[in-house]
Amino acid sequence: MSAQKCDIAIVGGGPAGLAAGLYGARGLVSTIIFEKQASGGQITTTSWVENYPAFPDGVSGTDLGELMARQAEKYSAQIELFVTVTGIERADGGGFVLRTDSGTDWHARAVILACGAVPRRLDIPGETKYTGRGLSWCATCDANFFKDKVVAAIGGGDTAVEEAMYLTKFASKVYLIHRRDEFRAAPIAVERARKNEKIEFVLDTVPVEILGDGTRVTGLRVKSIANDAERTIDVSGIFQFVGVEPLNELVTNLADVTNNAGYIVVEDDGSIPTIPGLFAAGDLTNNSLKQVVSAAGSGATAAAAALKYLDESE
Amino acid sequence: MSAQKCDIAIVGGGPAGLAAGLYGARGLVSTIIFEKQASGGQITTTSWVENYPAFPDGVSGTDLGELMARQAEKYSAQIELFVTVTGIERADGGGFVLRTDSGTDWHARAVILACGAVPRRLDIPGETKYTGRGLSWCATCDANFFKDKVVAAIGGGDTAVEEAMYLTKFASKVYLIHRRDEFRAAPIAVERARKNEKIEFVLDTVPVEILGDGTRVTGLRVKSIANDAERTIDVSGIFQFVGVEPLNELVTNLADVTNNAGYIVVEDDGSIPTIPGLFAAGDLTNNSLKQVVSAAGSGATAAAAALKYLDESE
Repeated sequence: MSAQKCDIAIVGGGPAGLAAGLYGARGLVSTIIFEKQASGGQITTTSWVENYPAFPDGVSGTDLGELMARQAEKYSAQIELFVTVTGIERADGGGFVLRTDSGTDWHARAVILACGAVPRRLDIPGETKYTGRGLSWCATCDANFFKDKVVAAIGGGDTAVEEAMYLTKFASKVYLIHRRDEFRAAPIAVERARKNEKIEFVLDTVPVEILGDGTRVTGLRVKSIANDAERTIDVSGIFQFVGVEPLNELVTNLADVTNNAGYIVVEDDGSIPTIPGLFAAGDLTNNSLKQVVSAAGSGATAAAAALKYLDESE
Repeated sequence: MSAQKCDIAIVGGGPAGLAAGLYGARGLVSTIIFEKQASGGQITTTSWVENYPAFPDGVSGTDLGELMARQAEKYSAQIELFVTVTGIERADGGGFVLRTDSGTDWHARAVILACGAVPRRLDIPGETKYTGRGLSWCATCDANFFKDKVVAAIGGGDTAVEEAMYLTKFASKVYLIHRRDEFRAAPIAVERARKNEKIEFVLDTVPVEILGDGTRVTGLRVKSIANDAERTIDVSGIFQFVGVEPLNELVTNLADVTNNAGYIVVEDDGSIPTIPGLFAAGDLTNNSLKQVVSAAGSGATAAAAALKYLDESE
């Protein structure tokens, strides 16, 4: 196995990773970004992004990823698409070794982890097909597409109940579907939701299939836990809030730097105090808003800190 | 004086304020942005922005401000240009009253301060004329415009010395101009700069005039402190690092929430723990990178926190 060298290696080619790549490359250090799929990461599964500032008419998730990638490459960031980083180790003599599934190992003086976080899957038919086509896990991003429409929110935690409330500002009706008859969410939030006339609680019920017309979501098939009876609820949108999994596998082997929920705990500048040279940005970090613009901002910030680290450790 | 009502009032219409306005308005609460000059705030003095992600060919500062403003307005944020907020007080019964120079007072349930920070002025002829035309205070933003050119860096603190080093990656030569013969900067940083062949120290010397051809900077007139002798240094770019002043007047009357340098100390979500309902974002906050994308990200984050605050305090 050959080991190539770079100054900054970035794992993840979503908004955080691409912004980090742009700032790293503009700092004139050799910068490489590894993305296991296409440029843009998770936003490529989003059909339309309305809330990335300076795009008043919105932009497709795919285009947004492409634009960010082109800009990073313009300043000589190297982007390796469809390459998975399979492991990171501290290198003898400083820096890190990144193992990849492309057959090449990389030695990097600094590493920025921007692997993101993914919504926990429902694992039901229709889920993959309708993601970004009526199935969403971000009310802030997508509620606006469902003005005066009927939607379903799935889940029983704080996020599910709060986001169901948020959806009532837009939707004409929100079914709140939860597999138990009690909520993990804060009682006061649940009480507020119960008082909201737009929310209909559908309890002891699990989703079994996302229905659609081939292009967009048209309904949700659900099953009663009590008697296994199934029925179809007509909805134009389905928001699932059954949890988010930070993609933290690479860091957990290096050190214990994640919080209870699995997010990497970073300083304001994206650094990880116990591992000099290691940084993190975007959805994978604690307290992230999980929005494109905040992820990009944290990527730029982490890259600036990495550049400073490289200067000081020369 | 009449008092109008809004849910979220944002002070400052730069990237942080406009992103906050976009996110606030998309949360369907009444959102108003006060900007004392034109949309975009400080970026309107920047001729070309190369490092806001998803604009691979760059964008003018004015256009970037316009695009962000149009997007916020699309979702019904109200933008009041050329209006200065002259004071903020806590209102009886909750919320805040904002006094403005337009003759209207505003009552807001939540306030986001995004007033920014400004470089301390040199107060010499040519400064205003050539700002954004060769005169800069951000090496990260503008160094790339001076590849293989001769530039001057003015200042004697850590920022000046570190940024002079950074500029040597791009420029063919960097004059480091400082009014004393000793530096406030860390000795190790000064030592590193002394070893850099591209840096020429010009000590005991103050700038007296920015010279240009009417369009761009062409030189810097300097004066020796020792003997008052003046001379002209030919440069294409001048970077001034003589300090940054956070625009914190509005908050200092409300509470003691700034750090030693005058920046507002915020939580990760932009909130200010001692004043419920008050938030801050962008360059005015501690640990800000002072970049468009990070300011916008923090504005979105503060707006999300403000929306949550409004929901919970209903």
